[in-house]
This record gives sequence, C-alpha cells and structure tokens, in this order.
Amino acid sequence: MATPHSPSAEDSLIARYFKPLATDPGALGLVDDAAILSSCGDDIVVTTDAVVEGVHYLATDPPDTVARKALRVNLSDLAAKGASPAGFVLTLALRSKEDAWLRPFADALGEDAKTFACPLLGGDTVSTPGPQMISITAFGRVPKGRMVGRTGARPGDLVFVTGTIGDAALGLDVLTGGVAASAVTDPAARDYLIGRYRVPQPRSALAHIVREHASAAMDVSDGLAGDLAKLCAASGVSAMIDAHQVPASPAAAIAVSAVGLETLVSGGDDYEILCAVPEGRSAGFSRDAGQAGVQVTMIGTIISGQGAPQWIDAQGREVTLRRLSYSHF
Amino acid sequence: MATPHSPSAEDSLIARYFKPLATDPGALGLVDDAAILSSCGDDIVVTTDAVVEGVHYLATDPPDTVARKALRVNLSDLAAKGASPAGFVLTLALRSKEDAWLRPFADALGEDAKTFACPLLGGDTVSTPGPQMISITAFGRVPKGRMVGRTGARPGDLVFVTGTIGDAALGLDVLTGGVAASAVTDPAARDYLIGRYRVPQPRSALAHIVREHASAAMDVSDGLAGDLAKLCAASGVSAMIDAHQVPASPAAAIAVSAVGLETLVSGGDDYEILCAVPEGRSAGFSRDAGQAGVQVTMIGTIISGQGAPQWIDAQGREVTLRRLSYSHF
Repeated sequence: MATPHSPSAEDSLIARYFKPLATDPGALGLVDDAAILSSCGDDIVVTTDAVVEGVHYLATDPPDTVARKALRVNLSDLAAKGASPAGFVLTLALRSKEDAWLRPFADALGEDAKTFACPLLGGDTVSTPGPQMISITAFGRVPKGRMVGRTGARPGDLVFVTGTIGDAALGLDVLTGGVAASAVTDPAARDYLIGRYRVPQPRSALAHIVREHASAAMDVSDGLAGDLAKLCAASGVSAMIDAHQVPASPAAAIAVSAVGLETLVSGGDDYEILCAVPEGRSAGFSRDAGQAGVQVTMIGTIISGQGAPQWIDAQGREVTLRRLSYSHF
Repeated sequence: MATPHSPSAEDSLIARYFKPLATDPGALGLVDDAAILSSCGDDIVVTTDAVVEGVHYLATDPPDTVARKALRVNLSDLAAKGASPAGFVLTLALRSKEDAWLRPFADALGEDAKTFACPLLGGDTVSTPGPQMISITAFGRVPKGRMVGRTGARPGDLVFVTGTIGDAALGLDVLTGGVAASAVTDPAARDYLIGRYRVPQPRSALAHIVREHASAAMDVSDGLAGDLAKLCAASGVSAMIDAHQVPASPAAAIAVSAVGLETLVSGGDDYEILCAVPEGRSAGFSRDAGQAGVQVTMIGTIISGQGAPQWIDAQGREVTLRRLSYSHF
C-alpha cells in the first residue's frame, strides 16, 4: 500500500512558521523552489546581509529582535539606495528547531515584513551544528537607472546623516559590560542604547527623498568614519566633517565623555543613512525629510582630494581617529 | 594629518578574491552595498540554497568543488524552472580566511560563473566561529508568466527525469565508508560517484526545453521519491513509476544489488530535473533534449488521486519505500 504524502521535517517547519509570511503571489505559497519577482519595468535593487550568532547578535538576544535585525539591516541598505522594498528571501541555518525560539522569531519577522511592505518570497532552511545564522537577500524597486550609488558625491556637496550616531555601539558595550556600561547608569538610557543595538530603525521613509535629492548615499553599518571614507573613495573625493555636529542621542551624550568621540563614529550597527546632497538641493532635502518624520543633520562638506576625510573639532583642530570602522574580522 | 583610505579586512578580501568575478555592470564592481538587476520586461526567478560544511559537503572536500556545488545547486533550480541564469549574490560565512582555501574557491566559482553565464552581483562576507557556510541567491529570467511550477502536472502526463539517479548518494557513501564503499571497488567507478556528489551537473541546457514542453518541473535535490511526492502533492495528483526504468549509471548499477533501489531513489544531491510532460509533447521533449545533449528517461505516468506515488517493479509488484527523502534535519 502506498504511504501517504509525508512532508519532511524542513517542509513542516516552513509550513508552520514561514508560510503565513509569504503573502506575495510571487512567493507561490512557498511550495516551489523558486519565487517570481515581476519587474514592471523598474530596476530591481538586490542587497544581501547576514547576521551570525555571537558575531552580529548575542546568543542571549531575544529571538524577536534577532528576526527584526536580520531583515532591517537589509531594509536599511534598500532605503539608502532610494529603493522601495519588494520582498526578501531567507536562509536560516538553525541549531535549535525549538518552538520557543522559532515562534517569536517568525512572528516578529512577519510583523516587520508587513510594516515595511517587504514580503517573504522564499528561502532555505538548513541545519548547522555551529552558531545560528540568518542570511537575507532583499529586493527593492527603483525607476530604471535611478538607484543611488556611492560614486556621485562631488566637491561642494553637503554631507548629511539621519538619526543619531553611536547608540548601537554603546548598546553593545552596555550589554557586554564595557566602559559605557559604567558610564551610563540610568536604566532608561541603558535600555534605549540596547534597543538601538538590537533593533535598527531602517529609514525606509527617506528612500524616495534620497533618490530625489542625494548625489551619493549608503547606510552606516560599520562605523560612520569608515563608511564615509568608503563613500569618498568610491566618488574620488574627500570630505571635511565637523565632529561636534555628529548627532548624538541624549543617552549617547552621557557616555561620550567616558568613551570618546571615536567610539561613536567608528562603532558599527547604526543603520542610519549617510548621503551627499548638492548644496542647491539641501534645503529641499531637509524639508522633505522633516515632512517624512526623519531627523537629518548636516555634518560637513565634500571636498576635492584623495585623502581620508578630515574630522575637525569645535575649536577648528583636526581630530585624529585611530580607528575608522568596526570589523568583525 | 589625515590617514589614507584604509580598506577593512573584509574589503581587501572582496577586492582580492571576488571583484574579478563581478563582470556584470549591475554588480557595480562590488563597491556598493547593492546591485542592480535590469528587468527587460522578463520575470525574475529567484532561488536560494545554502550549503553547510559537515552537512552538505565534507570538511575534507576540496574548496574548488565546494564553490561549484554551492553555485550549481542554485543553477539546477533555475534550470528546472525554465529560467536562464542572470546572476547571483553570495553570502560567505568563513572561519578560515586563508589563501590556500579562498584562492581555489574563488577561482572555481569564477569559472562556473563564466561557464553558466551567471555573474556574481554582490554579497556579504561574515566571520563565523562555527562551520563554514555558503549561501547563494541566484536569479534567472523567464518570459513573463512562463516560469515552470510544481502545480501543473495532470493525469496522463508522462514523468521524465534527466541524467542518472542515486550517484551522489552513493558517492557520499563511498566517501564516508558506507555499504557502497565496499560494494564498489573499481577506482574509476568510485571516483565517478564521488565526483557526482561533489560537483553536480546543472541541466541548464534543458531550461528552455522544459519551459517549452513540461507541465510541471523541479530539481531532484532531496531524493527522487520524496521530490516526486512533493510535485504530485503540489499538483493534486499521484503517479505510477516503473522502478526498473529509473536511470542508473554503470557505477550505480554495480552498487544497487548491495544497497537496494531505495538508496538510489531516496538519496539526496542528484540535481537532475524531474518533470511531467503531456503525452502529446513527449516526443518533442525527448527529441529537443537529445539535441541539447541531455539524456532524459521516461519513468512513469501521472495518475489521478491523492495518494503517494506508487513504485512498481519489473514483475508488476508494488515496491514499498520505507524512506522517500534525505533530510538534513
């Protein structure tokens, strides 16, 4: 007698946790090996970012925040490129297949997919004996030829950054008992910083405004100083930055006297947008960003030259940064 | 004095090993966080598959074969969907950053990207303390609405499979000292089976022929029996399979008396195409496949019903399979 159709452990896991997230028709209900991304004549922007347990998040981080971080670091890339989210595929390397971890993970992923209009299109679930890893490839749409790159910054453009810088690095420091942990004692301030580390706020509301006004943009993921240096190198320019203009949250302001500016501008995980805006467009950029509810701060100017960006303090002296970026390597 | 632009360890690694693979203009030379996939009015087919050291490949497998396997398991999916390769993004979770591993890995990946016209578009390189993992998301193109799904098989359609079945499972068995290791003593036969495990042959040449003729298709990655059951379930049909028609290589034929049919049809890693073809199109399908240099074998018929596919031996008796699929879970 023929045995009935018996789904594999992987199929059961997908059906149980992830099928409810696959709301886009192109996901084919996750019953196929592939998904369909309709083009509609737009360019598809593709970005991929992985988070590894113990490297990009802590084993003790709640599973719902891990899910949000994994998706949001990709949404942040799309926003900085001026792209509207279109969907994502997920590769999940799991050690634990326990409901206590997977249920809040999948629920939070589904909530964020809905909030940011970025449905799950497909994926792969694999077993690993090692640390868990979530690799997401996300897709966005821009009108043909309109993705905002890194190469378009020109001397005279103004340098803007969204939100506040350094919170996430301080949050990690608080979680791991570093210098900031003793400098920031107020529980609300500590929670704020930890929240900024665990759950980035992708600036999706700014995507079309970046596309409209910026000459170059990227998201700040490895430290503002290092990422600015990358943008300048790609554009063949340099920059002069007013270090004291770098926006800090009240919680970060408490910590900065203890940890120094360098920790703020070279720490990772900000997931804010850094962009160059031609001077004639800066008023429009600030206005539109304000209307979209996103704080933007002008921190300096693009200048000609091949050298690394210069950081200037409130007294007009150059600040030497020993470290530009956070590197997981 | 400003320090010069100093690339991070990750940037150096990307520039050294992977930039030469980014031949598509949409890859932007890997200097951006994102890539551009032009649509040209086609549908974009998206598939994602990861391989984990110790799970999908052995730690002792040569790095060039690991690279080829990681890409080819995705190319196999695209071919089964009737899609022409358009490019891929790579997430590499590395423990070792040694040239002795990365150089042959990147060179082989580049060779396959060229062979299969599937250029590297972007990626992410992360550090892991655990097993290495390569996650690839690959893109293909099909004319709008023409992706070949799993749901279109209809009673009366003939069931075809490409190449030979079971070689890879036997190759893994040889490598790990299983039953096949003692059954197959001829060195050439052993090498053949090991090669089939380590380096799949994606049936890319068949993509447009599948699109032209097949009513449903998928690639065989988790075992022919289980994958056929999935295709039937998705289409709401069943199948009757002539077990003795399942194509076996000469090396597998040596082993089959020792390991039994079940090992062949429930082992993983075949990466052949399984498809249903309406009877009136079967002659055309076989002819076109032959002209494309791909062996196809008719192994049975789609029938109505909800039960699992039935396997019939040369004497017309039903074969009971205790196991349908290989599961990594």
